[in-house]
Amino acid sequence: MYELGVVYRNITRADRAAADGLAALGSATVHEAMGRVGLLKPYMRPIYPGAQVSGTAVTVLLHPGDNWMMHVVAEQIREGDIVVAAVTAECTDGYFGDLLATSFQARGARALVIDAGVRDVKTLTEMRFPVWSKAVSSKGTIKSTLGSVNIPVVCAGMIVNPGDAIVADDDGVVVVPKAMAAKALEAAKAREANEGAKREKLASGVLGLDMYKMREGLEKAGLRYID
Amino acid sequence: MYELGVVYRNITRADRAAADGLAALGSATVHEAMGRVGLLKPYMRPIYPGAQVSGTAVTVLLHPGDNWMMHVVAEQIREGDIVVAAVTAECTDGYFGDLLATSFQARGARALVIDAGVRDVKTLTEMRFPVWSKAVSSKGTIKSTLGSVNIPVVCAGMIVNPGDAIVADDDGVVVVPKAMAAKALEAAKAREANEGAKREKLASGVLGLDMYKMREGLEKAGLRYID
Amino acid sequence: MYELGVVYRNITRADRAAADGLAALGSATVHEAMGRVGLLKPYMRPIYPGAQVSGTAVTVLLHPGDNWMMHVVAEQIREGDIVVAAVTAECTDGYFGDLLATSFQARGARALVIDAGVRDVKTLTEMRFPVWSKAVSSKGTIKSTLGSVNIPVVCAGMIVNPGDAIVADDDGVVVVPKAMAAKALEAAKAREANEGAKREKLASGVLGLDMYKMREGLEKAGLRYID
Amino acid sequence: MYELGVVYRNITRADRAAADGLAALGSATVHEAMGRVGLLKPYMRPIYPGAQVSGTAVTVLLHPGDNWMMHVVAEQIREGDIVVAAVTAECTDGYFGDLLATSFQARGARALVIDAGVRDVKTLTEMRFPVWSKAVSSKGTIKSTLGSVNIPVVCAGMIVNPGDAIVADDDGVVVVPKAMAAKALEAAKAREANEGAKREKLASGVLGLDMYKMREGLEKAGLRYID
Amino acid sequence: MYELGVVYRNITRADRAAADGLAALGSATVHEAMGRVGLLKPYMRPIYPGAQVSGTAVTVLLHPGDNWMMHVVAEQIREGDIVVAAVTAECTDGYFGDLLATSFQARGARALVIDAGVRDVKTLTEMRFPVWSKAVSSKGTIKSTLGSVNIPVVCAGMIVNPGDAIVADDDGVVVVPKAMAAKALEAAKAREANEGAKREKLASGVLGLDMYKMREGLEKAGLRYID
Amino acid sequence: MYELGVVYRNITRADRAAADGLAALGSATVHEAMGRVGLLKPYMRPIYPGAQVSGTAVTVLLHPGDNWMMHVVAEQIREGDIVVAAVTAECTDGYFGDLLATSFQARGARALVIDAGVRDVKTLTEMRFPVWSKAVSSKGTIKSTLGSVNIPVVCAGMIVNPGDAIVADDDGVVVVPKAMAAKALEAAKAREANEGAKREKLASGVLGLDMYKMREGLEKAGLRYID
Repeated sequence: MYELGVVYRNITRADRAAADGLAALGSATVHEAMGRVGLLKPYMRPIYPGAQVSGTAVTVLLHPGDNWMMHVVAEQIREGDIVVAAVTAECTDGYFGDLLATSFQARGARALVIDAGVRDVKTLTEMRFPVWSKAVSSKGTIKSTLGSVNIPVVCAGMIVNPGDAIVADDDGVVVVPKAMAAKALEAAKAREANEGAKREKLASGVLGLDMYKMREGLEKAGLRYID
Repeated sequence: MYELGVVYRNITRADRAAADGLAALGSATVHEAMGRVGLLKPYMRPIYPGAQVSGTAVTVLLHPGDNWMMHVVAEQIREGDIVVAAVTAECTDGYFGDLLATSFQARGARALVIDAGVRDVKTLTEMRFPVWSKAVSSKGTIKSTLGSVNIPVVCAGMIVNPGDAIVADDDGVVVVPKAMAAKALEAAKAREANEGAKREKLASGVLGLDMYKMREGLEKAGLRYID
Repeated sequence: MYELGVVYRNITRADRAAADGLAALGSATVHEAMGRVGLLKPYMRPIYPGAQVSGTAVTVLLHPGDNWMMHVVAEQIREGDIVVAAVTAECTDGYFGDLLATSFQARGARALVIDAGVRDVKTLTEMRFPVWSKAVSSKGTIKSTLGSVNIPVVCAGMIVNPGDAIVADDDGVVVVPKAMAAKALEAAKAREANEGAKREKLASGVLGLDMYKMREGLEKAGLRYID
Repeated sequence: MYELGVVYRNITRADRAAADGLAALGSATVHEAMGRVGLLKPYMRPIYPGAQVSGTAVTVLLHPGDNWMMHVVAEQIREGDIVVAAVTAECTDGYFGDLLATSFQARGARALVIDAGVRDVKTLTEMRFPVWSKAVSSKGTIKSTLGSVNIPVVCAGMIVNPGDAIVADDDGVVVVPKAMAAKALEAAKAREANEGAKREKLASGVLGLDMYKMREGLEKAGLRYID
Repeated sequence: MYELGVVYRNITRADRAAADGLAALGSATVHEAMGRVGLLKPYMRPIYPGAQVSGTAVTVLLHPGDNWMMHVVAEQIREGDIVVAAVTAECTDGYFGDLLATSFQARGARALVIDAGVRDVKTLTEMRFPVWSKAVSSKGTIKSTLGSVNIPVVCAGMIVNPGDAIVADDDGVVVVPKAMAAKALEAAKAREANEGAKREKLASGVLGLDMYKMREGLEKAGLRYID
Repeated sequence: MYELGVVYRNITRADRAAADGLAALGSATVHEAMGRVGLLKPYMRPIYPGAQVSGTAVTVLLHPGDNWMMHVVAEQIREGDIVVAAVTAECTDGYFGDLLATSFQARGARALVIDAGVRDVKTLTEMRFPVWSKAVSSKGTIKSTLGSVNIPVVCAGMIVNPGDAIVADDDGVVVVPKAMAAKALEAAKAREANEGAKREKLASGVLGLDMYKMREGLEKAGLRYID
């Protein structure tokens, strides 16, 4: 349950270098490296293909049809942040458009992750300000009810704490608890290190069955080949 | 409830200049300018990004899996029209493809808005004939049951009257009652007029909190800042 | 119901030339030519626009969250195949990424059709390895339970037998029973043959109502024109 | 598009006897008798089984999360009315509970049809005040924005005009335009008249194939029997 | 892909005693006994609680909005059958009501399983003719297109062959291939045999952790208890 | 993000009397009394109507298709608890049936709230062990992966901490943070105190418009009555 009407100004952010470094690895590798946890539901989609970012979360809790707190969170953004917005109930309204994006970008935000709708996607695409959302909608919002900024929120099924690291790309959005960011980066890099060699082998026609030595396991499990 | 088997040939269309002028403003601004009404449900998506059109609605009511009336409506299209197609029950079939698009385009139609499916989207994209639909599907349709043309229809949850103005872009589809088209255009232009100045301010780092003078209202509502 | 833990190595594939020829016609024309059967549900979407392929199906049955059999099916791929993957329960996990795609491509596969999720879509797009899926998700999978390869499966609501011809493009995915592939190709070509002439007529402003001689039928059905 | 902030006090209601008589026939028979039009989307479900009512519509347009107008519409209810509530955007909040039901019932309302949520369903069931809704939810609503009363609304995909006849039961909700109520009742009664005889025949083992003389039509259509 | 326009009259049905015996075990136990395969998607729900049946499948393939073949399948029903109905595309129309139920019941059918809608559910409940469906809808259907009877169909995601055993209850619908019916019954009975003893133990407060000897496995997997 | 493989044995539970007292008020009143927060998504539905319970949460985090931790959580149940089960990804499998219910009931649990599926609902109904779930499914689960017990979880979109108070009935499920349970009970009682008087007034025909003195506010907001 949520604490309403508060703005936490001093939050601890994940290690800067770690949070920044995750983008290059991508959401799938980071998710894998963390033991397959931290993924937001796959209905969260980018508004344009190809964006790949990471950063530190500032969180905002919104009410359905009300984007007042988006202006409040803007002030809390620091260089390298990604705004993570949750709503207290299901809503597809367009909470965010090109004016707010201009403001967020000016404050140093790299992206918005919102469990609701977004609009002005054409302009946002031209501005190269990426948004992951569950809907695109022209529907505007009012400014009348208090939510909160920088409290723990549930966004697309996942708990996000202020300061956590976020990595997002065409495959989805992954949250990395701030305490684990450095370790997650290291693990992800390790995973990726030998991908090049594997890719080359597979490209040459070697089968995963042989490269990963799966044949014995499959046989043990009872796999039968029928001609 | 719907009147079936009729084609209204003489409909009053929204003021031409107003209907044409809405495109430049876009669906979000027009929707906002009208007091946040008139938006079709956000599941209506364009088949390719970047299209931005406005025009006058000719409406058609279809039966599930039957596109006979699409040929009937083609004859009623005039230069500057947008065809708005509703179905009497949920259906995702591909009612419309490149041949019909060729015909619609030849008659002067600017777009199709259909609460069902569309196909040949690759060719439609090459032709630059935009369609907003709820699905893409190869599934063809038969031609055996009468619907109607130019009656009021419910398309994606919204009543559309023949002759209403329609504006559609990447953010969605908005219907403007014909009697309000000129006023809506004016209001939308007014909204947009001072957007440039606002954008500049926000880009320079000024916060919406200050630009919109929200701080007092937030304090009154009880917002607490915690360090 | 499914036979588990088996791999059929020798399957009869649809006639090569026929299977290859379907791509040029596209899913909508082939679907139409077959009497409007064989279409997978329209939630199956391509990961990038513009891909248009056909080939012969090798099938794989997977368990939720487990992609072990993807490595098993890789060995059964021959030049010109399309892998069709079904899951025993609803799942949106990312079963397939760039490493498996490298392997599939090296073995001669042209595409993947999967009733689940896919990841690394940015790299897959760069590789031009097309995938039709119901979701995109960073979520990885384990390798612990046996499914089957080259058994009949239900993919997105449609039965696919190993060796059937598959045609997929921006409009969707259609399966053609292997015994009907040659006939389907011929029928589809016949359909397309006179499309050029029709398109020209429609482009010149001739109405479908006249070109298809629909006016009498509509009148008989009781259509009334009201001025 | 909707006119906001108005209450029409004097509406013409469908013929009383006709509106009352429809309940006994049921939604399926009435829908059939009207030529299969007028059905609200099938996600509209009754809160308890067995309720079967008909009456005249008073309509109300609500905003998401705001039930202020429910109190306004209460005053417009007359004996024999059914309240039909639409919302300007998707919402599942519980707009209606036992207090409002007590008020509606005291004013003579027979039921509520709402394209949103309802709560206190246990008490409503005990009170035998039936509601057809798209959701059940504890979530309450505020009272701050004007909608309208007795304007035409779109409820679950169907246009409902104030004064139209409504029939609702376990199978769904059907709207009958007020001008057609008497005729629809008559047609529905005619349909039902010979159902008893049919039921007896079918119960004795006679096939619909023979009773409806379908065999010839099926043969003509090409049906083949294979032993 | 489906063969259209055919009725197979002579099908091999699952062993009678086995098909009949499955009802007492219930869908969950049978599903478990078969190795967790054969379950239709969980959106298939009974129209009233408490029905628990099993029998042999006669299958029917329908077109969207067309129930002509329901009359054709009626003739193929024998004592102890359950009709399994699939549709060639998504549809929620009410294909089946009290008249058809009277006919099916007279022919010896025990239930209907339909991947679409049903109506007259109040009367069907009174008749105690159970139906598992994906929707309830007043919407009637026409009789104009040929499907097929007793071909293999895909119903709610699962292949059902004519003659297969079906078991359905409040938990869902399971299909048992005819060749496995006797074995499945035996396995299900074995599963159930020692459930009584287990239930007594658990009721007395013994934990599954101890009864199933799970503690060692959990410890091995690394479970940590924190006080 | 979740901590995996841990069981917290000593949790602080909400005040017993407060947690127990909430049931009588019901989820809607409690939700209202708390300022309209704490409601799980409305897709959570009871398996039978009429159950109304409250208690203290013990939480369990499960993996898709794996109910191993359900046996682990059983040991942590104390008299008056309600088990709240979350899953790391979307799943509708039947994690819970009559055997586990027997065990939970023997340990003192009053209900299960699970963001997944349940089975044996007929027996659970007979046992009067209520379950709120998002699905009913015969599909069983395996026992192979560690989750956690008594960590904070996200269940149907809401954070639930171990020891929080839960109230659930036909209208839905509400979570009350343990520290607020007593206050929430008091507030809910206060809300209910004057409901009797209100109900009587409304039953006598007094309008909410007058009882709540809404007329002035509506007039101020601009409501127009048209005769």
